[in-house]
Amino acid sequence: MQIPQPYLLFLGDVSDPLAIKMARGIHSWRPEACIGQLRLNQETPSVGISDLTLAQGREGGAKTLVIGTTNAGGKLPQHWLDTLLEAVECGYHVASGMHQRLSDIAPLAEAARRKAVELFDIRHSAPLLDVGNGKKRSGKRILTVGLDCAVGKMFSALAIEQELNARGLNSDFRATGQSGILIEGSGIAIDAVVADFISGAVEQLAPDASDDHWDVIEGQGSLYNPSFAGVSMGLLHGAQPDYLVMCHEFERPHMRHLPHFSLPSYEECVNANLVHARTTNPNVRLAGFSINTSNVDEKRARAHLAELEEKFGVPATDPVRFGIAPVIDSLLAMDA
Amino acid sequence: MQIPQPYLLFLGDVSDPLAIKMARGIHSWRPEACIGQLRLNQETPSVGISDLTLAQGREGGAKTLVIGTTNAGGKLPQHWLDTLLEAVECGYHVASGMHQRLSDIAPLAEAARRKAVELFDIRHSAPLLDVGNGKKRSGKRILTVGLDCAVGKMFSALAIEQELNARGLNSDFRATGQSGILIEGSGIAIDAVVADFISGAVEQLAPDASDDHWDVIEGQGSLYNPSFAGVSMGLLHGAQPDYLVMCHEFERPHMRHLPHFSLPSYEECVNANLVHARTTNPNVRLAGFSINTSNVDEKRARAHLAELEEKFGVPATDPVRFGIAPVIDSLLAMDA
Repeated sequence: MQIPQPYLLFLGDVSDPLAIKMARGIHSWRPEACIGQLRLNQETPSVGISDLTLAQGREGGAKTLVIGTTNAGGKLPQHWLDTLLEAVECGYHVASGMHQRLSDIAPLAEAARRKAVELFDIRHSAPLLDVGNGKKRSGKRILTVGLDCAVGKMFSALAIEQELNARGLNSDFRATGQSGILIEGSGIAIDAVVADFISGAVEQLAPDASDDHWDVIEGQGSLYNPSFAGVSMGLLHGAQPDYLVMCHEFERPHMRHLPHFSLPSYEECVNANLVHARTTNPNVRLAGFSINTSNVDEKRARAHLAELEEKFGVPATDPVRFGIAPVIDSLLAMDA
Repeated sequence: MQIPQPYLLFLGDVSDPLAIKMARGIHSWRPEACIGQLRLNQETPSVGISDLTLAQGREGGAKTLVIGTTNAGGKLPQHWLDTLLEAVECGYHVASGMHQRLSDIAPLAEAARRKAVELFDIRHSAPLLDVGNGKKRSGKRILTVGLDCAVGKMFSALAIEQELNARGLNSDFRATGQSGILIEGSGIAIDAVVADFISGAVEQLAPDASDDHWDVIEGQGSLYNPSFAGVSMGLLHGAQPDYLVMCHEFERPHMRHLPHFSLPSYEECVNANLVHARTTNPNVRLAGFSINTSNVDEKRARAHLAELEEKFGVPATDPVRFGIAPVIDSLLAMDA
């Protein structure tokens, strides 16, 4: 699956600024992939780029209309369908991260067939997969892992890829979640594959590469999250990472959505990830920490990061506040 | 899903004795659920029960025709279809563990609808699932875990359930694989659920129960098997076991189907299972070892089991050679 870029970002008529987080992510990491945005009314929050009609978007070169919003039920609002149908008539491909499949909406599927454009259902678009085999692959791999879900694993992986490329190294971001897939235009929604194929999917996503190539693989969940640890475990084995970057949100009070679950310690989580990563790569190393410290002031943030560096002997940074460079410096020194 | 018993076991015309292993398993653990067998020719290996026609099976009370064979491709041989169609006409439900869905075979699906019987596609029959939440459930749970796949986790779980029931305790076997599901008549094929729902599926499979109730949950894979560890991890969290029974095949040379992978040590595997089981049940304990020692003579078997007992301080047995009772004695003493 390769979603043709550039995109026109469709924001519908959502009112919650959080609902356009996915569109913001795409624009923030791939501004060159975003021709403009399409809002159904002016109250809808803006990503901060040009408002374009479908026709203007096409004139500007847009190839895919991306539904850049998330909503609770994962269903397409009925009144958005007219826009999607019109987009297909204009020659757009359409990409969606909704649970409901675009390809299950008969008039849309029929129009897409007639216009020879594609409907990308990100959550349901895993390729034919094999069971993982754990065989050592060529090339180098970095995996972002975490103490919990939603602690910045995608952000950190994108920051790492950007920094590696800025230094002239050969690097690819490998997306495992829907936002990441829309940003990159390709990837596998790893939590949507059949359980038997988790590690096999990652083996396919980050295949053999040249010796100087870096795959930066987006982690998911946590080995300590009782909802999603199976996904995290298969991802860890399939990635066979050379380097792990541990992510966290400082001062998170408990596991996300699970107030009855406390967080593991950094030691426990680093140790478990290294132990299980060794199953497919005995040489795996911890490269550093990428911590979201936005809950505290800069002084407390620096103190926490210094504590982690002291304890684990690797760099700790907040990629937003202080940049990811310290982790990359250390990682490249280890790798030299 | 509840597959109506008793069964008529359909063996088709397979020639390999290994191909009827599933039928043998059903008969061995649930003889009362097997009215007879149906073979398409006399060269097909026998399970050792009466050969019956479809009509004779129905007269004897059989409710479901179970395809009791496994084959490499997971596809139904075309020439077996006549028998299945005739079975449906006789009023049988049909159950299959093939990859190919019975419900996708149009004439069979149509006949089943007309006769109001069910087609059970074990590999594809997960109920609507929720994401796991790890909340503590009432009742007691035992999970069989292992150093690798195919080391006797289903056999051990069935032996444990049988022994608990023989002692007058209130116990259920919870099947997570296709053979187990056919034996029990219910369960969830855990490796076939979407990755996001692994632990949630097990939470549903082994729900709240009375304080004196024992769920004996069939484990799958191994935390150290790079193909399937994601399934094993989600199963471990979802089961929230009070007791683990570690299974292995003594003298297995390498991970199954993965000659490039050596086996973990018992220490590593016990430790990792306890560490991760504690995420959902801090009081989890190792109850004992259930080892397949059929590769060695009795003297070497006894020496190996004694070594495990010495090292871990819990009973170790071969459930076939010496029975599962020592593990149950110890488990019930711990639980008292």
